[in-house]
Amino acid sequence: MIHPRCQTSLEVILIRSRMIDVGSKSEIYREALAEGEIILSPETIQLIKDRKVEKGDVFSISEIAAILSAKKTPELIPFCHPIPITNVSVEFEVDVNSIFVRGRVKSIGRTGVEMEALMATATALLNIWDMVKKYEKDDSGQYPITRVRDIRVVSKIKRKMTTK
Amino acid sequence: MIHPRCQTSLEVILIRSRMIDVGSKSEIYREALAEGEIILSPETIQLIKDRKVEKGDVFSISEIAAILSAKKTPELIPFCHPIPITNVSVEFEVDVNSIFVRGRVKSIGRTGVEMEALMATATALLNIWDMVKKYEKDDSGQYPITRVRDIRVVSKIKRKMTTK
Amino acid sequence: MIHPRCQTSLEVILIRSRMIDVGSKSEIYREALAEGEIILSPETIQLIKDRKVEKGDVFSISEIAAILSAKKTPELIPFCHPIPITNVSVEFEVDVNSIFVRGRVKSIGRTGVEMEALMATATALLNIWDMVKKYEKDDSGQYPITRVRDIRVVSKIKRKMTTK
Amino acid sequence: MIHPRCQTSLEVILIRSRMIDVGSKSEIYREALAEGEIILSPETIQLIKDRKVEKGDVFSISEIAAILSAKKTPELIPFCHPIPITNVSVEFEVDVNSIFVRGRVKSIGRTGVEMEALMATATALLNIWDMVKKYEKDDSGQYPITRVRDIRVVSKIKRKMTTK
Amino acid sequence: MIHPRCQTSLEVILIRSRMIDVGSKSEIYREALAEGEIILSPETIQLIKDRKVEKGDVFSISEIAAILSAKKTPELIPFCHPIPITNVSVEFEVDVNSIFVRGRVKSIGRTGVEMEALMATATALLNIWDMVKKYEKDDSGQYPITRVRDIRVVSKIKRKMTTK
Amino acid sequence: MIHPRCQTSLEVILIRSRMIDVGSKSEIYREALAEGEIILSPETIQLIKDRKVEKGDVFSISEIAAILSAKKTPELIPFCHPIPITNVSVEFEVDVNSIFVRGRVKSIGRTGVEMEALMATATALLNIWDMVKKYEKDDSGQYPITRVRDIRVVSKIKRKMTTK
Repeated sequence: MIHPRCQTSLEVILIRSRMIDVGSKSEIYREALAEGEIILSPETIQLIKDRKVEKGDVFSISEIAAILSAKKTPELIPFCHPIPITNVSVEFEVDVNSIFVRGRVKSIGRTGVEMEALMATATALLNIWDMVKKYEKDDSGQYPITRVRDIRVVSKIKRKMTTK
Repeated sequence: MIHPRCQTSLEVILIRSRMIDVGSKSEIYREALAEGEIILSPETIQLIKDRKVEKGDVFSISEIAAILSAKKTPELIPFCHPIPITNVSVEFEVDVNSIFVRGRVKSIGRTGVEMEALMATATALLNIWDMVKKYEKDDSGQYPITRVRDIRVVSKIKRKMTTK
Repeated sequence: MIHPRCQTSLEVILIRSRMIDVGSKSEIYREALAEGEIILSPETIQLIKDRKVEKGDVFSISEIAAILSAKKTPELIPFCHPIPITNVSVEFEVDVNSIFVRGRVKSIGRTGVEMEALMATATALLNIWDMVKKYEKDDSGQYPITRVRDIRVVSKIKRKMTTK
Repeated sequence: MIHPRCQTSLEVILIRSRMIDVGSKSEIYREALAEGEIILSPETIQLIKDRKVEKGDVFSISEIAAILSAKKTPELIPFCHPIPITNVSVEFEVDVNSIFVRGRVKSIGRTGVEMEALMATATALLNIWDMVKKYEKDDSGQYPITRVRDIRVVSKIKRKMTTK
Repeated sequence: MIHPRCQTSLEVILIRSRMIDVGSKSEIYREALAEGEIILSPETIQLIKDRKVEKGDVFSISEIAAILSAKKTPELIPFCHPIPITNVSVEFEVDVNSIFVRGRVKSIGRTGVEMEALMATATALLNIWDMVKKYEKDDSGQYPITRVRDIRVVSKIKRKMTTK
Repeated sequence: MIHPRCQTSLEVILIRSRMIDVGSKSEIYREALAEGEIILSPETIQLIKDRKVEKGDVFSISEIAAILSAKKTPELIPFCHPIPITNVSVEFEVDVNSIFVRGRVKSIGRTGVEMEALMATATALLNIWDMVKKYEKDDSGQYPITRVRDIRVVSKIKRKMTTK
């Protein structure tokens, strides 16, 4: 017994929040692919394609933002575990009035990486927004068109490691 | 001239990416409200409403995730400036098969806070996902229903400070 | 020899601080439980128990603060190693004029986790303080009653991993 | 109205946690002094005083840990605001079987700095523990003597700024 | 007197490390420009100029690394203060066998920004190294040519703010 | 196929930046030693040797800065992986008008640690600069002498782990 005191008034608060205990899970290969889309005006899309966005190259900077945020996931999503990410990659697909972002995260660890892939994708999408704010704002400083749509997990994979 | 050497081969790389210089902007009151939605199965929504989610109280933990990520925005979105956030607040609205999150950020500073509000909202939405992963996954570990929809800036406000 | 120069004046500074080299330690199961107490006024304790603290639910938010700070320990305690934490949990026990916090950290790694458990416990205790500042301050803004007491390691465990 | 949809089932979740809005507070000089004590064996105290602790100089490294953690307070205590700390200082007082740590934080900002002073003090105390773990552990790896005692706010000051 | 106890054995440890107290300094415009050079093989330089480096665009990614590390300076250099950076910019100059990096940081605050400019420049230089490791390593995995040279502060400026 | 939609306008952006996928590399012992030099005035060197630098002990504080920045490398160099550092150590060598810093990092992981050793060394050198700014600045606040020179990787080692 931890507190051998006579305290009849003691009330133990049941743990109501709970980080998963991954100690008994195996260290296996894990991969997740997430996808999302940002709606932009066709004029902004054209500026991005023509590499004329004043803040710089939207794709390479959003990739970096995605990679860094995947690594920061355990600081952002409280119940996420620190995990040994082995790779983050990002792909962009440009449509007439939107850009699709697909973030893929790989790890060899005790827990899945879908939150890392979702966080990488969401941050890349928001970084695109940040880089084209100037072109998307209307005269009163509002964003009538811009929005991030349909962030989802495309696939999750786990696989026993083969002998090295 | 910085390098007074005879280097005819030197090639100056033009700056192609660019953080906005906010030094000439005034320190004024700034506020932004962002909103987003996460689609979940009706069963998961019911568990959340009944406070039966095993990982804990989805709303209060997502609020904390939102507040922490708003403060971390300059680490996540490379061109964001460190700013003196004066308040972050989060509101949830529960529908039959989705939850709306609205994140509001206030600051007295030289630049707008819509990226902070968007980051807070996106992180709250992804934290909800993290807390209900167990109920949303199908037998093969995929997420057929779950997705984050329509993250947008509801409004941006700026206002000269009145004398204190 | 690293510097093959003739510098008779060179003075090598002996290393005076020293991070433990854990490279030769085995990856085994490790667990630590720390405990601490915060003294509060009985009125504040009652507000906490009645869930009437204006800043929110003291227990669930302090749990999150504990989990996040356990993960941040290598940034706070300079000689701590980055380790793969597999679980953090927190328990609260409410007495008439104090709250006990017990933080437990588990890992499968090359070094013990007592500093992580202590940091989680200390941060949870200080977060309780932060959430009830308003009720504990006297008219001159001082804290005549509030204090954190007796943070200690209750137990440390290490155990060889059984085959998975 | 934000959602002009016909959703009779919508349930708005009242905000249950709450970061203080400091936007209307004045930017004034603020200072807080916190204090705490760590109990150690007399042998460990002697090693510290003789500068024979293998991990290095306990005082200067604990000072650095304190300064860094004061700056990290808004990442550790969720409701703390990012503030412009103007100074952190730490003082140690060595007794026969304990060391007192006093951490002082100064700022010119919109909110008090007692949480920063408390966090600096707690981290310095835990860093002392980390540096003398080897001498405080018994044969079974437990800490029968070591504990952190009585962390408290010694004083809080706020003062209008005089004209510069 | 803080400890009104009869402890003749108490020994106060003089503060030996010291963060500058910037509370009495004025909030003025501050700017610093730092410069450094990385020596690379001519073949690597050519790959960089031809945009054929497999890891991506060396310049835009090094710019981002510089900007992020300028913002992180108070976490890296213990005595640096958290400051409101208003701008970071980076310029590259490519020579036959080296690249010059110039990092400029601007702020309106109470202390100079040369450490931020130096940290931005050093991190950009090391990021270039990271991106071309593959081309610079010899058969035994060593770096016979690569080195970072002459990181220095080119200029520091401070200027009273004119009325806005 | 991920998007089974009829979007003839879609343009897939080829990934142009790329984090190395270390998932297929073995977990082996890895070590790297980096070295760099900071040029200072002889008067400053004498103050450092006499332990009269007002900001504190240059060596022990720079060691801590090095250790902390080695652990932060994946946040600073975007393509670096989070790795389980097992040790960081720093050595100083004092010459008449310069100080050599050698930072050594060890890990048992899937990728080399030269970036961590370089980052540790660079940060230690810049921290020395930060601590002696006062003595190195001329009357106009510039640094005519101070510079960091020749940061390089002295050696890299990798070695299969012997059975434990």
